[in-house]
Amino acid sequence: MKRVTIVNIGDELLLGQVENTNAPTMSRLLTGAGFDVARVEVVGDQGEAIERAVGAAMDESDIVLVTGGLGPTKDDVTKRVLCDHFGSRLVESRTALENVRRIFAARGFELTPVNRAQALVPECCEVLNNDLGTAPGMWFEQGDGRVLVSLPGVPFEMEWLMEHRVVPKLRETFQAGVVINKNLLTQGIGESFLSDLIEPWELALPECVRLAYLPEAGMTKLRLTARGGRAEEAELHRAVAEAVEGLYRLAGDYIVGEDCETLAALVHRMLCERGLTLATAESCTGGAIASRLTAQAGASAYFKGGVVAYSNAVKESALGVRHATLEAHGAVSEATVREMAEGVRQRLGADYALATTGVAGPDGGTPEKPVGTVWIACAGRQGTEAELLRFPGRGRQQNIDRTVNQAYAMLVRTLRAQR
Amino acid sequence: MKRVTIVNIGDELLLGQVENTNAPTMSRLLTGAGFDVARVEVVGDQGEAIERAVGAAMDESDIVLVTGGLGPTKDDVTKRVLCDHFGSRLVESRTALENVRRIFAARGFELTPVNRAQALVPECCEVLNNDLGTAPGMWFEQGDGRVLVSLPGVPFEMEWLMEHRVVPKLRETFQAGVVINKNLLTQGIGESFLSDLIEPWELALPECVRLAYLPEAGMTKLRLTARGGRAEEAELHRAVAEAVEGLYRLAGDYIVGEDCETLAALVHRMLCERGLTLATAESCTGGAIASRLTAQAGASAYFKGGVVAYSNAVKESALGVRHATLEAHGAVSEATVREMAEGVRQRLGADYALATTGVAGPDGGTPEKPVGTVWIACAGRQGTEAELLRFPGRGRQQNIDRTVNQAYAMLVRTLRAQR
Repeated sequence: MKRVTIVNIGDELLLGQVENTNAPTMSRLLTGAGFDVARVEVVGDQGEAIERAVGAAMDESDIVLVTGGLGPTKDDVTKRVLCDHFGSRLVESRTALENVRRIFAARGFELTPVNRAQALVPECCEVLNNDLGTAPGMWFEQGDGRVLVSLPGVPFEMEWLMEHRVVPKLRETFQAGVVINKNLLTQGIGESFLSDLIEPWELALPECVRLAYLPEAGMTKLRLTARGGRAEEAELHRAVAEAVEGLYRLAGDYIVGEDCETLAALVHRMLCERGLTLATAESCTGGAIASRLTAQAGASAYFKGGVVAYSNAVKESALGVRHATLEAHGAVSEATVREMAEGVRQRLGADYALATTGVAGPDGGTPEKPVGTVWIACAGRQGTEAELLRFPGRGRQQNIDRTVNQAYAMLVRTLRAQR
Repeated sequence: MKRVTIVNIGDELLLGQVENTNAPTMSRLLTGAGFDVARVEVVGDQGEAIERAVGAAMDESDIVLVTGGLGPTKDDVTKRVLCDHFGSRLVESRTALENVRRIFAARGFELTPVNRAQALVPECCEVLNNDLGTAPGMWFEQGDGRVLVSLPGVPFEMEWLMEHRVVPKLRETFQAGVVINKNLLTQGIGESFLSDLIEPWELALPECVRLAYLPEAGMTKLRLTARGGRAEEAELHRAVAEAVEGLYRLAGDYIVGEDCETLAALVHRMLCERGLTLATAESCTGGAIASRLTAQAGASAYFKGGVVAYSNAVKESALGVRHATLEAHGAVSEATVREMAEGVRQRLGADYALATTGVAGPDGGTPEKPVGTVWIACAGRQGTEAELLRFPGRGRQQNIDRTVNQAYAMLVRTLRAQR
């Protein structure tokens, strides 16, 4: 298995204002293509730090992927470090310059000297053309077969280059092995109880299959990964299938879906497959249920729309919740959440509807309804179900995320039951 | 300035399914408290990899913060590595055990052996009690004054421990210096043009002030950071104030706000300060405008609610967009977006309303309205403004994110103009 080290460069990553989304995107694409990410390192924009990180990574890895430090602004030093490392010098690349020209022409902008400088690359590298931006990818080969690839730090440019240039070329250069990934989404059981429950199964897993626990808000994703050479492919598939079967025998009640990264993706797939439609009525989740569904391409096939009913007045006027219900039970109540779900389902003409109302925190709790008290409901053709959730924490985002996942899981279970 | 290295442990971080949100959270808290994060390293759950990372980090840093590898599941090896590194052995901590008991009692669960094992810690460490979870923080001091702190990988537990235990203790142990951060949000100008524009100013910045470009979807945040000893505090403040003044002279037209991390936070602050209310009508952004506002505590003070009008039928029924408008101009049009904004403003009784309709992609474009064609509108007491956006890329999430930020910026400018 080829060993990969990722080096992400950027002061902004160390200042804590920007999340490093590049590392997980790269890891996902690399592991899916049969490469093994052994380490990720994040350093600032200083030449010395970059040099040390690149040197250490090249010493220990077959493949080093570097992102960042190629932007048009002045904190750019990566290219000079790479020149030094490979004993090369900067030259203007015709390919890269053409690309910069093309992009500026398309936007109707004039080329500035700062932008023209983006076409300068170390002479010894191969330029990987970046269709989406002005900073090129650069592919370096060392005499001993090790490879270093430098990519821009802008996430969508990096991702496009990885998919279209880097991963195919890596698979060609190194004869990549086989990796089989299998995701199982579990819900309704805590990580430690799940671990106790499946311990005998886990201890009996064959050596080629590895298990990872990937806990998210209110659910745990189990990921089985089998790796080996091309010749073992059939055997690896069999090992994974057997492991999955064994897991269902022990923990089938808690498995809500397979082969999806998230519950939102599972909802998306189930509604698309069955040709059913959905509407949402959100109070405490504030639009998060809708926005995570609509972030997925093709959501318009099933998503009719939603109402974010933050105030009581909107719950009445836009969803038809009765004033008397709000008066008698309050906004955070079973009666209200049921009327929200039924109201939006009927008004938007959807097959199913999800509704949420609760106290997300960190303030706004009462002794009766403390922070973390949330009602969710799912209305469908066969009636409405409601559930009370009580989250222990006061973290607003965490309570929102857990509510969203519980609502998705409720819909999945309803769809399963009404199959 | 004390040098900090962060080591995040977890196979899940290298498999690419989980973003490493811990590193930015820790960096933000540390830089805010006067510490300098020099490097972040991410390794898997293997003892050897953890050992190497911890060893290298301790060699080069004053402070090493480690997260992960403390969970109740079997892939936990960090504690054993730390025992080896510090020449210690695992003992049951009474403090940690009491905490595990308390948490299990509160949830009404029975204590399992797997959970009891969470109270085992290296004998030489000081336990930092974790109010939110069962895995304790652990503080180690080396003879030479270097410090290592081990924290659980669960983000909200880690964050709570950082805020309440680690950062205060670090500030006490090391006499932390002064760090002044100043954010300026710019919008309406690309990063490279901004860089050209402000080059003379940047070159003239005093040595104690550093500039970082933090580009986000459709906007660029400029961050000035000044650092020094406690004695220089007044001088540092003056240097930052002068730098900000100089920046306004050159690029004032593009600066939409100060002292906010995001445009959502700026909208939140302005609406709160002025006692104004907002409603939203979202098509292509699918609830993202609403959900990013309501993710902020206190949003109920100004956010009335919103409609996610994904289908034309919902645009008509829930927002009052006229059928004739949709027929004549289509859903992605100036006429439609204006009626959406005005409709939701009136129906939800808000002072202002934002609306979006467009083709987010990756599919669904036409020659006339290609992917990336988006109309946004802002309706207020003094009328409605609409704007056509044309994004070059086909990336759905990117187009959504840019639309959200443009809509926020439009509202900020409207509020400024109507001051």
